[in-house]
Amino acid sequence: MTAATLEQFEQRYRARFINSLSGFKSANLIGTCDDKGQTNLAIVSSVFHLGANPPLMGFISRPPTAGNASHVERHTLSNLIESGFFTLNSVSIPMTKAAHQTSARYPQTTSEFDVTGLTAAFLNRFPAPFVEESPIKIGLEVREHHHLSINNTVLIIGEIKEVHLPTAAIQPDGFVDIEDLGLVTISGLDSYHLTERMMRLSYAKPDKPLDMLSLQGSRIDASLS
Amino acid sequence: MTAATLEQFEQRYRARFINSLSGFKSANLIGTCDDKGQTNLAIVSSVFHLGANPPLMGFISRPPTAGNASHVERHTLSNLIESGFFTLNSVSIPMTKAAHQTSARYPQTTSEFDVTGLTAAFLNRFPAPFVEESPIKIGLEVREHHHLSINNTVLIIGEIKEVHLPTAAIQPDGFVDIEDLGLVTISGLDSYHLTERMMRLSYAKPDKPLDMLSLQGSRIDASLS
Repeated sequence: MTAATLEQFEQRYRARFINSLSGFKSANLIGTCDDKGQTNLAIVSSVFHLGANPPLMGFISRPPTAGNASHVERHTLSNLIESGFFTLNSVSIPMTKAAHQTSARYPQTTSEFDVTGLTAAFLNRFPAPFVEESPIKIGLEVREHHHLSINNTVLIIGEIKEVHLPTAAIQPDGFVDIEDLGLVTISGLDSYHLTERMMRLSYAKPDKPLDMLSLQGSRIDASLS
Repeated sequence: MTAATLEQFEQRYRARFINSLSGFKSANLIGTCDDKGQTNLAIVSSVFHLGANPPLMGFISRPPTAGNASHVERHTLSNLIESGFFTLNSVSIPMTKAAHQTSARYPQTTSEFDVTGLTAAFLNRFPAPFVEESPIKIGLEVREHHHLSINNTVLIIGEIKEVHLPTAAIQPDGFVDIEDLGLVTISGLDSYHLTERMMRLSYAKPDKPLDMLSLQGSRIDASLS
């Protein structure tokens, strides 16, 4: 189908369709705090790895000045820009419904922690709340925010300041077994999925067949011919 | 663990660790063409949904001027900036090894289509090659590219110009069943996973329990209490 066909789609139909096309997405909860200590929690599926050195992550938010549709992100975005800090907390299987519920349009005076039953954890005096139930909790400092005028969204770039996760999930080569931690993945706007490991593959080189890696990162003898 | 701990990690250990933290990622192949018709194909896990109206997608690339580590992306990035067009093609289960192999450092004169056995498809005179084997094929025009000086990466924003996918995968409400299409998801740098649907959830509202949606987007009677 062409761009002209997409334009003719009804607005919500188009949103569901276009949101499905990029593939499976990460599920994270962004935790923030305003200057009065009011906490805020919002699910986000646009978090991406930006770099390992320095350790950077990015995500896309709708802007604070937009209409009703961005009510949730407005609190998150104003909090994190004002405070300079936020947390990213992974969504695992038992948290899925509570995490999805954070996307409802609560008033600014309502904390999504209170209404969803997720537990705010304040660790190491970090100035934003973590989610106790999340297997991976990341504290980040805002390094940059860019207004993307093309569609009035905001790109947030944060630098990782601390990470809390079960050390048993860290494999000998640094890979973290997020499937074993029960993390879910999202497709489209509202579909949640478990995962089932196919394989880890060795670093690709020209003229050399790929090896399968064990979960621990060591080569498995049989090459994939 | 703290930022100081992360800094002390060995470089590749740190890359594997930090790349794991954001959660599950999409798997796409970027198809490009240079002005001589030389095709290029590269796997990317940083594609994200940017907006539905206009229909925009973004991804992160290492820059054309960086060292050896970004050899693959260099061809892709220079091609797409010069031509103004690229394709995004979903990675499904049987394509996984070939898709991973595109990350090897082939010379610019080698097409990853030739060495991986994936098939270049030229559709509707679109000026970049699609991957015949991909269930979802998206043709995009480059709208913006931003150099992110914080770590010398480039943010590419493309507008969707055409989409090719099996229409049976499109549900009545616009949601695309990418699990049924066999799309894989990535964790870390090298781990590939299948998915298993948990549920679709209704649009969240305050003071209203979430409903489960059928795959087709209609409400299922039993609310999730």
